[in-house]
Amino acid sequence: MTTHARPPADPATAAAVKAADRAHVFHSWSAQELIDPLAVAGAEGSYFWDYDGNRYLDFTSGLVFTNIGYQHPRVVAAIQEQAAKLTTFAPAFAVEARSEAARLIAERTPGDLNKIFFTNGGAEAIENAVRMARLHTGRPKILSAYRSYHGATAAAINVTGDPRRWPSDSGTSGTVHFWAPFRYRSPFWSTSDAEEAERALRHLEDTIVFEGPSTVAAIVLETVPGTAGIMMPPPGYLPGVRELCDRYGIVLVLDEVMTGFGRTGKWFAAEHFGVVPDLLTFAKGVNSGYVPLGGVAISERIAATFATRPYPGGLTYSGHPLACAAAVATIRVMEDEGIVEQAARTGERIVGPGLRELAERHPSVGEVRGTGLFWALDLVRDRETREPLVPYNASGEANAPMAAFAAACKRGGLWPFVNMNRTHVVPPCTIGEAELKEGFAALDAALTVADGFMA
Amino acid sequence: MTTHARPPADPATAAAVKAADRAHVFHSWSAQELIDPLAVAGAEGSYFWDYDGNRYLDFTSGLVFTNIGYQHPRVVAAIQEQAAKLTTFAPAFAVEARSEAARLIAERTPGDLNKIFFTNGGAEAIENAVRMARLHTGRPKILSAYRSYHGATAAAINVTGDPRRWPSDSGTSGTVHFWAPFRYRSPFWSTSDAEEAERALRHLEDTIVFEGPSTVAAIVLETVPGTAGIMMPPPGYLPGVRELCDRYGIVLVLDEVMTGFGRTGKWFAAEHFGVVPDLLTFAKGVNSGYVPLGGVAISERIAATFATRPYPGGLTYSGHPLACAAAVATIRVMEDEGIVEQAARTGERIVGPGLRELAERHPSVGEVRGTGLFWALDLVRDRETREPLVPYNASGEANAPMAAFAAACKRGGLWPFVNMNRTHVVPPCTIGEAELKEGFAALDAALTVADGFMA
Ligand SMILES: Cc1ncc(COP(=O)(O)O)c(C=O)c1O
Ligand SMILES: Cc1ncc(COP(=O)(O)O)c(C=O)c1O
Repeated sequence: MTTHARPPADPATAAAVKAADRAHVFHSWSAQELIDPLAVAGAEGSYFWDYDGNRYLDFTSGLVFTNIGYQHPRVVAAIQEQAAKLTTFAPAFAVEARSEAARLIAERTPGDLNKIFFTNGGAEAIENAVRMARLHTGRPKILSAYRSYHGATAAAINVTGDPRRWPSDSGTSGTVHFWAPFRYRSPFWSTSDAEEAERALRHLEDTIVFEGPSTVAAIVLETVPGTAGIMMPPPGYLPGVRELCDRYGIVLVLDEVMTGFGRTGKWFAAEHFGVVPDLLTFAKGVNSGYVPLGGVAISERIAATFATRPYPGGLTYSGHPLACAAAVATIRVMEDEGIVEQAARTGERIVGPGLRELAERHPSVGEVRGTGLFWALDLVRDRETREPLVPYNASGEANAPMAAFAAACKRGGLWPFVNMNRTHVVPPCTIGEAELKEGFAALDAALTVADGFMA
Repeated sequence: MTTHARPPADPATAAAVKAADRAHVFHSWSAQELIDPLAVAGAEGSYFWDYDGNRYLDFTSGLVFTNIGYQHPRVVAAIQEQAAKLTTFAPAFAVEARSEAARLIAERTPGDLNKIFFTNGGAEAIENAVRMARLHTGRPKILSAYRSYHGATAAAINVTGDPRRWPSDSGTSGTVHFWAPFRYRSPFWSTSDAEEAERALRHLEDTIVFEGPSTVAAIVLETVPGTAGIMMPPPGYLPGVRELCDRYGIVLVLDEVMTGFGRTGKWFAAEHFGVVPDLLTFAKGVNSGYVPLGGVAISERIAATFATRPYPGGLTYSGHPLACAAAVATIRVMEDEGIVEQAARTGERIVGPGLRELAERHPSVGEVRGTGLFWALDLVRDRETREPLVPYNASGEANAPMAAFAAACKRGGLWPFVNMNRTHVVPPCTIGEAELKEGFAALDAALTVADGFMA
């Protein structure tokens, strides 16, 4: 499906695109004068290219959203058809694409998560899940995990547990952070999966008890933490969290914005653990990011709270027809092409073994972890102490090893996902074996660079 | 441009769309079992139609976003072309549609608002404007007005000044509400525009002084409050607010999510008052809602704060290529077809006179106010006392007069915008004289119904 020809160079357009970008585009998460954004000309499947004749294999899926790859022809056609038919319509009406997207999503979410509230993206989904939980329980507090990312609007950034929260956290948001399990860097000094799960649950229950169960509206967790490091929770942990929620009348919100729609080799990562949350947030993979869309899948019990009492939340583009039509087409494509199963198979047969083989030869790889098309390499200065290759939230000189690693990937034609001391391998779920092999070769060279920074 | 033929009936599709909607779509701002959403089959220009052969003239522009009407062929074509070329790409890159949209928007915003931070909608724009103001000033508080709407994420709903805030306001958001001018229902007992402006400014300055100027990061105002009632601020008020902001080092945020892109007969409503804010939020009209898009236009001074210090905010779909391509096409269409000038002319020559003529014959119309394609009829039980036709935030029986008014409009083939005791006349800026006359005839009949509820 991917074009392997080298795209022609077009320096004039590149210069114009760059000039207008530098003059007028204010970029996310950046010091505006210290960035130099690459001008991108096009993309297809697992690749994108610039205007200078360079093509990159995308191991990031954008920001982990193009689960079906770039420019899938059936989804592009569906967007074009919906644009011609009814590109936009206000949320208070019944619209075919909106109804159909809700039905297809509800059919795939676990348990009785049958009602879909649509948003434009992940942060707005978390905002509404938090609001629903507070109103459903009548309780104020939200418990969420360190090592998490839930978005950048006020409520979403307050439940986030990474440094992006620091500049925006008012400290008065009613969010309390706890520690979730992480075998490789255990907050609980555990020596087995079972011990990690047990101790993490004890810690969580202690936190609930000391905060006051009657004050806790919801526990918000990424089913598998994504940006924070792709830590599969040990068996028993999520079922244990479900049990604590039931015992204390707390709403369980699983954030599947990054893990949903095939990323982990299941439609939703919750299926790996046999757990049904009360609210499930999604975005990204729902339509591979082709048109902005997110949402909350709502259990019948919580929906019933708003049966005759108005739900006090909304947005102008809730259930946008163009975004919903892209979701309908994406879900059908994933179904017809068996993309979820492909992700599971590719992860097990190619990505896992390939990355473990790299780890054997590169001492800077402290751990390989993941499933489906959702993998992390945890890079270290020392395999014994597990000291991260760069400190938490490093920048500038302190981050030089990871910057050198990323630069080496790009020289090898690979666009890497890099966060702190990790690189994530999160290409489209449709990526083929030959493409992966090409990417692993680039990783191989870049890991040699990383090895050079070890203690 | 609009199709005047009656669409064919298709009850089978209607039933399927409705059934899936009721089973799976969770609607904004609604008690889920008390609503009965109309199934919409299509739309063009100023009209939309259902599956039962009914066509409605849309006096709402969706939620006041289709400034160029439904399904403008040039914008539809631009969406189709961008979908074929590069429908999505991550925000950290320079992308042609994103660069071009930022350039076209920055060229049209007043003053030196030259840097554009893109979001998916209005609430996220306010979230980021508030964050920028707090970080730029190092101060915690936001002053905003009662009678306002700024969106439904946590920070945006907290600065909002209408009842939608009540269920979500934690009371710890650092927002302080003040009263903005409103001649017809003056909070300041004024008897002239000049007095209203002067007293409103005195009230605002007193509030700043008593809150502590060194604690106030921003004043957030809709340039012309929209959902809250389309109250044009009296001459002198906004320049006076600008002056207070300069005097006390406060950031002025003008929210033009609803007023921007032609709605008031100017590109931005701020032009009516000769005022340049430090931050200007937009969404809706920027691409007529064809693809979700919003943003913040940022002054050079505030952008400089984030020149070498990272801006701590972002979102997966910032500057989404498909949304930006729709903005580029919409702005070009508005320019080529003179839609902003048309809005100004239509407002002055047709809408204003037409609504004032209705007011002469219908005693329930307490006031007609507005400009461009942005008008409100303030309905009253008594013209002397100006008692609203229904109480503030009325529902059920108490709201019967407005419900009867709305039903009468629909019987006349007009889809009205109704909020509390008001109806807003906010059709597409492209609406023609014959269409407006048709709408006024329906309003005429509906106002007779409203007259029947007077004291
Ligand atoms: C798990 C998770 N939740 C929420 C978000 C926020 O989504 P958005 O950027 O669309 O607001 C993200 C974004 O990366 C995410 O990974
Ligand atoms: C003035 C104003 N600001 C912000 C918003 C919120 O925009 P959105 O619904 O796209 O989040 C609205 C929506 O109506 C608005 O009218």
